[in-house]
Amino acid sequence: MRDGYVACMKGVILGLAPSATIVDACHEIERHRILHGAFVLRQLVDWYPPTTVHVVVVDPGVGTARRIVAARAKGQLVVAPDNGLLSLLQHDHLLEEVHTVLNPAMALPEVSSTFHGRDIMAPTAARLASGTRLSDVGPATDHVEVLRLAHPERQSDGVVHGAIIHRDAFGNLITNVTAADIAHLRRTGADARVLLGDQDVGPLRHTYSDVAPGEPLALIGSDHRLEIAVNTGSAADRFNPPDDARVVVR
Amino acid sequence: MRDGYVACMKGVILGLAPSATIVDACHEIERHRILHGAFVLRQLVDWYPPTTVHVVVVDPGVGTARRIVAARAKGQLVVAPDNGLLSLLQHDHLLEEVHTVLNPAMALPEVSSTFHGRDIMAPTAARLASGTRLSDVGPATDHVEVLRLAHPERQSDGVVHGAIIHRDAFGNLITNVTAADIAHLRRTGADARVLLGDQDVGPLRHTYSDVAPGEPLALIGSDHRLEIAVNTGSAADRFNPPDDARVVVR
Amino acid sequence: MRDGYVACMKGVILGLAPSATIVDACHEIERHRILHGAFVLRQLVDWYPPTTVHVVVVDPGVGTARRIVAARAKGQLVVAPDNGLLSLLQHDHLLEEVHTVLNPAMALPEVSSTFHGRDIMAPTAARLASGTRLSDVGPATDHVEVLRLAHPERQSDGVVHGAIIHRDAFGNLITNVTAADIAHLRRTGADARVLLGDQDVGPLRHTYSDVAPGEPLALIGSDHRLEIAVNTGSAADRFNPPDDARVVVR
Repeated sequence: MRDGYVACMKGVILGLAPSATIVDACHEIERHRILHGAFVLRQLVDWYPPTTVHVVVVDPGVGTARRIVAARAKGQLVVAPDNGLLSLLQHDHLLEEVHTVLNPAMALPEVSSTFHGRDIMAPTAARLASGTRLSDVGPATDHVEVLRLAHPERQSDGVVHGAIIHRDAFGNLITNVTAADIAHLRRTGADARVLLGDQDVGPLRHTYSDVAPGEPLALIGSDHRLEIAVNTGSAADRFNPPDDARVVVR
Repeated sequence: MRDGYVACMKGVILGLAPSATIVDACHEIERHRILHGAFVLRQLVDWYPPTTVHVVVVDPGVGTARRIVAARAKGQLVVAPDNGLLSLLQHDHLLEEVHTVLNPAMALPEVSSTFHGRDIMAPTAARLASGTRLSDVGPATDHVEVLRLAHPERQSDGVVHGAIIHRDAFGNLITNVTAADIAHLRRTGADARVLLGDQDVGPLRHTYSDVAPGEPLALIGSDHRLEIAVNTGSAADRFNPPDDARVVVR
Repeated sequence: MRDGYVACMKGVILGLAPSATIVDACHEIERHRILHGAFVLRQLVDWYPPTTVHVVVVDPGVGTARRIVAARAKGQLVVAPDNGLLSLLQHDHLLEEVHTVLNPAMALPEVSSTFHGRDIMAPTAARLASGTRLSDVGPATDHVEVLRLAHPERQSDGVVHGAIIHRDAFGNLITNVTAADIAHLRRTGADARVLLGDQDVGPLRHTYSDVAPGEPLALIGSDHRLEIAVNTGSAADRFNPPDDARVVVR
């Protein structure tokens, strides 16, 4: 937001769809961090009404052969480069229909080689918001790029091995382990314990204040994902785990 | 804003109140800094129209017994945790009516233990924006939590002792001393002088450029509060006062 | 955005123009960096519809004798302090009409000495958005303040000398040299080379990925300006050029 790039996209949208309501969702995805974008997009589709068109521009490959796609997920539409941003929607079987944006009538008359967000994605989204059908953007496709995500693994003894996929602004470490993935542990009533690498962060808690200020804890967060936190502190600062750190629930 | 949390709240609001206009006010309150939130909220109610519903989420106590309240102030509505965020409205006698949000029909069907902003406050605000009456959210209450604010003290000799309650993004140090608190000094025509701790920052000035670039000054800022600043510089950087630093006007 | 200042301006606008659509363009102009603001404003007018009123507040001279102006550019309206923010619009001959905001009916009833964005510019913009004519804000003027911009110079041998006028959030170094300024070099088919100071950054490329990750390149960016970048990296970090660094195309 310190440049005019996002604002130019909004101008393009308002020029083509004057009655569209533009909602600022998130402009601070770490540069080129596609997984960060995929995570936030996955969060959002749980909470937005079906009239929404999400425009997601994390696009290190702009100007290369990477495709631009438009998809329907939970009744909402998404326009994004096909670089893994749809990974978590795909993983959760939420993609209902995906089209490759190839119809030149979707884009602006002049398309730069470095800013497809403004020249292709924003106008495509504006047209979709104004009633253009998803099938009009280009041919349907069966394939979307999927990031190598560390899927949680359930071992024969019921132990679940997962990974951290997001560090939020509060320093909470959010994992790819969902409440469903460890439901079998919770049902047994056994004392499930959570480990980050070789450090024990204790049993599953209910909320942050279940431990003293400054103390770490594990809980199922507001997105139904296992999360490692520090009460009124930052788990990211305290543990600073490497990108490939393992989280174990046993 | 680097996460999807705020965006999820907006999605909830738009789902329940599709014609609401969402205004991004301030997403950079320092973490858990309730006084910062209280200060910004107090600023805003002076400038917003009566149709406004303010949603204020600085909520370190989420999941604890702290209440959520909905209040009317200057004809506007406010939804917030009752943790001191309404302190400055209360101090200035602007709270016309306060209700505890207890009606379960206000919240989403499923309420998480860690994100009441999304699950209770956003939907309550959306319903209030759509015509739900304030009295429908829950019972009226006479009590709101108030932060220990260093109130300015006027001594028998007319000297006023105050404190810094906010550092703005420009590095201006904003105090709890209002223009009214020192009107008696200004009326006498005497040379009121302002001290920060034991440092003299001079008489009251009219605007920043009344001193040379880089020089400190004291003035009544745009919110009618005594403010210590540095012309084209940062008073926060220059003085870096402790949280309990005293400001004296004599 | 960490303070309520911007939000107060929005409140003023919504109070006076309830049906206005407020668009957040850019709130992270470096403090007092008028050229940064002028650059973003110049970008935006290429992409916004004619119904737009831009409010631009980079205003280190608030409270001094600097004027406030309202202008028409490409059919859009701009309200800003007359401190150089209109420089790039002026340079590109896009200012169709400029008026000095002097009509007191444009401002709020009480005008502070330190926040004309809220007290004069926001209400003027709201009134213009609601149908007030540009000529009603005050008398027409022929003069606007123009920043000393390093204009690109074309030498007799066709070599072009320019300067960096913006560093974007990706670390791209954007120059005052436009595609038109070097069209003569490109037409000859000769191998134009770009130098930053005495460092050769190679020929003109088409897009970032034309060089290996981490390698620098020069290209015509999405605003038709010569730009020095690093593929998936930051040219600002790599070269850290002084403010008066020269860029040469030969």
